Amino acid sequence: MTETDTHEQATQANRAALRLANVDAEARNGALADIADAIRENSEAILAANEDDVAEAERMLAQGEYTQALVDRLKLDEGKLESIAEMVESVADQSDPLGETLAARELDEDLELYKLSVPIGVVGTIFESRPDALVQIATLALKSGNAVILKGGSEASESNRVLYETILKATPDLPDGWATLIEAHEEVDRLLEMDDLVDLVMPRGSSEFVSYIEENTQIPVLGHTEGVCHVYVDDAADRRMAEDIALDAKVQYPAVCNAVETLLVNESVAEEFLPGAVERYREEGVTLRGDAATRAVVDVAPVTDDDWRAEYGDLELAIKVVSDVYEAVDHINENGSKHTESIVTEDADAAETFMTGIDAASVFHNASTRFADGYRYGLGAEVGISTGKIHARGPVGLEGLTTYKYYLEGDGQLVASYAGEDALPFTHREFDGEWRPGHLADE
Amino acid sequence: MTETDTHEQATQANRAALRLANVDAEARNGALADIADAIRENSEAILAANEDDVAEAERMLAQGEYTQALVDRLKLDEGKLESIAEMVESVADQSDPLGETLAARELDEDLELYKLSVPIGVVGTIFESRPDALVQIATLALKSGNAVILKGGSEASESNRVLYETILKATPDLPDGWATLIEAHEEVDRLLEMDDLVDLVMPRGSSEFVSYIEENTQIPVLGHTEGVCHVYVDDAADRRMAEDIALDAKVQYPAVCNAVETLLVNESVAEEFLPGAVERYREEGVTLRGDAATRAVVDVAPVTDDDWRAEYGDLELAIKVVSDVYEAVDHINENGSKHTESIVTEDADAAETFMTGIDAASVFHNASTRFADGYRYGLGAEVGISTGKIHARGPVGLEGLTTYKYYLEGDGQLVASYAGEDALPFTHREFDGEWRPGHLADE
Repeated sequence: MTETDTHEQATQANRAALRLANVDAEARNGALADIADAIRENSEAILAANEDDVAEAERMLAQGEYTQALVDRLKLDEGKLESIAEMVESVADQSDPLGETLAARELDEDLELYKLSVPIGVVGTIFESRPDALVQIATLALKSGNAVILKGGSEASESNRVLYETILKATPDLPDGWATLIEAHEEVDRLLEMDDLVDLVMPRGSSEFVSYIEENTQIPVLGHTEGVCHVYVDDAADRRMAEDIALDAKVQYPAVCNAVETLLVNESVAEEFLPGAVERYREEGVTLRGDAATRAVVDVAPVTDDDWRAEYGDLELAIKVVSDVYEAVDHINENGSKHTESIVTEDADAAETFMTGIDAASVFHNASTRFADGYRYGLGAEVGISTGKIHARGPVGLEGLTTYKYYLEGDGQLVASYAGEDALPFTHREFDGEWRPGHLADE
Repeated sequence: MTETDTHEQATQANRAALRLANVDAEARNGALADIADAIRENSEAILAANEDDVAEAERMLAQGEYTQALVDRLKLDEGKLESIAEMVESVADQSDPLGETLAARELDEDLELYKLSVPIGVVGTIFESRPDALVQIATLALKSGNAVILKGGSEASESNRVLYETILKATPDLPDGWATLIEAHEEVDRLLEMDDLVDLVMPRGSSEFVSYIEENTQIPVLGHTEGVCHVYVDDAADRRMAEDIALDAKVQYPAVCNAVETLLVNESVAEEFLPGAVERYREEGVTLRGDAATRAVVDVAPVTDDDWRAEYGDLELAIKVVSDVYEAVDHINENGSKHTESIVTEDADAAETFMTGIDAASVFHNASTRFADGYRYGLGAEVGISTGKIHARGPVGLEGLTTYKYYLEGDGQLVASYAGEDALPFTHREFDGEWRPGHLADE
């Protein structure tokens, strides 16, 4: 692929996006159903291609280049393919994120402003290993009317190519170029430069990978870098509830971004709380480190300053004793990643101080940090988790792949009539109504 | 100012932002009232400083460095200061953009998720000449609970410094560092690098200036680069309405971004429409250029290809004859700046084709493009106009300076209970309600 080819592909994606924005929900959902069927029907070819990827990955594993975890993530089988097909169908079943009237306002008689949800345009995505990521991202893009440029990891290249071809063949009626697969690494760098043609980039992968993307493009990025989450056990906590939440937040699935990394404990309950909590952590195999005040109560390894900002992503936990909820808030605002923070307390004032004082996408009272996820939040298909504050924050549903457009229906109104000495006033009256072109003339 | 100073200022702004987010509406509005009063009381010192700026600007004008327009924009008087004070009061009167419950959803019994509007954090703004811009931006930031870093044009430096000091002295109870004035150009470059401390940049000025900012920062930018807007006169247009709209969109205020730059005319009405329209444009002193088909009907200068993408910002207009609404849509999607586009037609189908087919922040039917503005849209104080598609699009009100935060109120829930074989189901039931910390315990 030359530079011109990549540019031409992005230009075609742009043209496709304009047309896809007006493909109705029935046609988009029908195409999704066809994709699900095609994945089932084409399972033999998909699994054969996947076997090639896995064989190559196992060679790399033998050479110590890849990890067993990567090989496991890569591997597809009939059961996984069926789950992928069902995922596509479940996206088709969701309500349509497009064409929703977000606001309707009369500016003056027969001058009506409507704000409608529309697709963003062209979404570029760059993801690592798992071949199901390609299908999921293409599916979410299609549901939300966006053209998509897909770049998968080279370790999944055979699987990705066959999955991509399966998707394209299943959707002959969609605008040419609605989904584009790019394969070479140079193409990624060129893609990141095309801020005139690509509206949003969604990277999926490690924190370092997402940070690299953010630092190398002018295109807005939807992604999450780090999850350094905290649980704070207040002096007014229910001790048993605090233990349960602190444990669930760490061990239920330690590899994910919403798992807790640092436990903060109010000093007046440290002696009562820590021994029992530490015992339960040890039963689950969690490696513990603590500050001096923690180590005065329980026998754990000492922390270094780096621990306070570490995203272990594993059965490891740092523990710090704090004097009150204010110190907890300050510690989190200084060291956290604005992802998800939880307080355990029976004191409503302490909860309010904690929840309003912390700048994070999600702040919880008496619940595990692990609830921070699009499915649990009831957002339907999860597009991703954002650690940015602009456009979309925290768990992001299909809404994150939409923007809005203003439609104004008039009857020949001029701004000159609303300016100067005898300016007409605006009415600015909100009303319930759907945009229908030309309806003023019908009345 | 050294690099360390700028970093320290941004760090302080960050700390102030955390506190300002929890200053209630009454205190923020009270501070705005105090700012308005202080501007009135301090008018002598403000006008004296402004005289220094104007005297210096006039010296530069004599040397041919500045334009008369710049000197005019710079100049304050008692009347202008009173308008500025009234603007501050009108922002105080607006409804509070913070703490609004955007969604409330029960995830399960006694597990309630709330989505609330909150400030973005630290907003950096860079603006040219007009001293009223400093007051307006500081006011909008305060109303929306954001800390603000202000950088004005050097030509207004004396006025800006006195206005800034007036604002700071009037707001002793707000967190230290809620507003920071930076003056040296090097500080702007340093500010643009602080993507860990500054959440949003709002540049105000020429298209070139905004583009420069966009290309030189990783911080999200809220601003508008270009306004290349079109009016399309359809074959089913009311001829008189089309003339009026095409004229209003150009001459009512040609310097602004929502003025029309290219007029598109359906070929089947070109002979009927163009002579009268051209006559009215000429009466208003508009310089006209046209394509060959236009020049076959009326005597205007020829266009070059550059005209189709030109933002004249003046009494100039390009005219093109198109075969149908589809050609109009294609021309606009290829040459427009996604700002504001208008069709004049009595045909609802043509209106729908135009409005849904064009990718722009605002698409109008039978109304002048000049209506695209925050005040006319009823958004209240206008933060700016965005030509980006992410976060905020088109005219942006105070809402554009907010983001959201999820609050989850639980009763000790663990994710382990909602996972695996005996997973509890989620209820995911929307309800009307306001977040109140700890209310579950009260029941």
